[in-house]
Amino acid sequence: MKIGIVAASSRFARERADAVNDWMERTYPDRSVSVVFHPSSFAKHGHFSGDDASRANAFVEYANDPRLDAVWFARGGYGSCRIAEAVLPQLTDVARAKRYLGYSDAGSILALLYKAGFPHVAHGPMASDAVRHDETAHRALNWLIKGDPASLEPSLASDPRPAVAFNLSILDALVGTALEPDLTGHVLMLEDVSEPLYRIDRMMFHLTGQASIRKVAGLRMGRVSAIVENDPDFGLTADEIARYWCARSGIPYLGAADIGHDGDNKVVPFGPR
Amino acid sequence: MKIGIVAASSRFARERADAVNDWMERTYPDRSVSVVFHPSSFAKHGHFSGDDASRANAFVEYANDPRLDAVWFARGGYGSCRIAEAVLPQLTDVARAKRYLGYSDAGSILALLYKAGFPHVAHGPMASDAVRHDETAHRALNWLIKGDPASLEPSLASDPRPAVAFNLSILDALVGTALEPDLTGHVLMLEDVSEPLYRIDRMMFHLTGQASIRKVAGLRMGRVSAIVENDPDFGLTADEIARYWCARSGIPYLGAADIGHDGDNKVVPFGPR
Repeated sequence: MKIGIVAASSRFARERADAVNDWMERTYPDRSVSVVFHPSSFAKHGHFSGDDASRANAFVEYANDPRLDAVWFARGGYGSCRIAEAVLPQLTDVARAKRYLGYSDAGSILALLYKAGFPHVAHGPMASDAVRHDETAHRALNWLIKGDPASLEPSLASDPRPAVAFNLSILDALVGTALEPDLTGHVLMLEDVSEPLYRIDRMMFHLTGQASIRKVAGLRMGRVSAIVENDPDFGLTADEIARYWCARSGIPYLGAADIGHDGDNKVVPFGPR
Repeated sequence: MKIGIVAASSRFARERADAVNDWMERTYPDRSVSVVFHPSSFAKHGHFSGDDASRANAFVEYANDPRLDAVWFARGGYGSCRIAEAVLPQLTDVARAKRYLGYSDAGSILALLYKAGFPHVAHGPMASDAVRHDETAHRALNWLIKGDPASLEPSLASDPRPAVAFNLSILDALVGTALEPDLTGHVLMLEDVSEPLYRIDRMMFHLTGQASIRKVAGLRMGRVSAIVENDPDFGLTADEIARYWCARSGIPYLGAADIGHDGDNKVVPFGPR
């Protein structure tokens, strides 16, 4: 089992890759499972881990490589929306059969893969944050290796409807674009990090104001963490904001989702299970 | 000439209203032009200048009041998207005939008024920031009083096409919702403040990715000021970001616009002139 890791967004530090490699060698001393970082993951182009062409080429190369069983996103930040449309037409049937795991900014590519009918796309821990916690890394790898149901967000066990999960800021920035998948009838899980609550409110206004999003089966709010201070206090919590906009837009609010920018982030495979 | 001022967004300080009143009394000692603040402008409800119902009622009351000749937004911040849809059906023909001036967060209401066919809606200085500079305040008042062409953004003099102007963050958060006007054939001017460049890029991806926005006649980028530091340096300026996404989406880039979160902010009346 060999997993290819690609950096499609912000700069990625070689020291972080070393930590991932060390963890993998300790955990799988027989190398029954191994990872390989695309060499261009460490390139630097302004904000990004290499320019758009370099990041797109790295993703395409690893996705299409028959020696790799899965593709894992290195980290988030910002940048995958810039390359998603260029990547898709270059992907082969080899790419289509693989598992893809990431979240946060990686959601832009995951959205387009799901829209294109890729069957094994999931929102979950990325390489760089998973290996900070054994439990998180095992959860991610067990899904990448075998689609382990124990890795999944717990509400999925009792809700048979198709699901997706996104960082709110990322989904909010792709609705109406070529990346937006049809989420009709899906349970939509959201999470976010490092935003003031007035922005969470504004994004929920925008997202729940889309005709396309009003067709979801329901919404679950994951963790909204590291909230940036709002002065004065916003007056509503993230959960209250979600409930308000769901009520106003007619979207059923289904409760909490066990996802977020943290070690407890569970895996949410896109679509039916 | 009497102008009603309403706070539709964030909290508004009474001291700021006192400064506006002082400036008006010094400038128009004969009270040929005067302003009146809606009493509920100073209410506080968490982040907002009163709860949604109170802000909506204040706007409707002043818009429909035949004793007032124009409506001026007090300030921006956040909150007018929450009340715009509730306001519109309550507005009468008296409201329809008036001039409306504001920008930044007020863009959410201005967008819906323009969508509803209100003929005198403009992006320009608000009460609270205009009176910090004589020139800014005169520019705003001269448009509110008589639609003075000297107040207008200079490119409008030689470009006969209909125009609109928005804060990028605000327009980005209303595309696809019930507030979005049809901007086919319009020159679209944008400005923003206090954002890191990766967010400017992400918003431009989203905005220029909308089928509706790809129908504009062209785009002008106003000032993007008080840019929040991006570590590492983003690698593109706001102008380069605008040119990139225009080229990618097929929207003609028309150059700079003389608008922004500053005293030089010119007036852009929505639609044909």
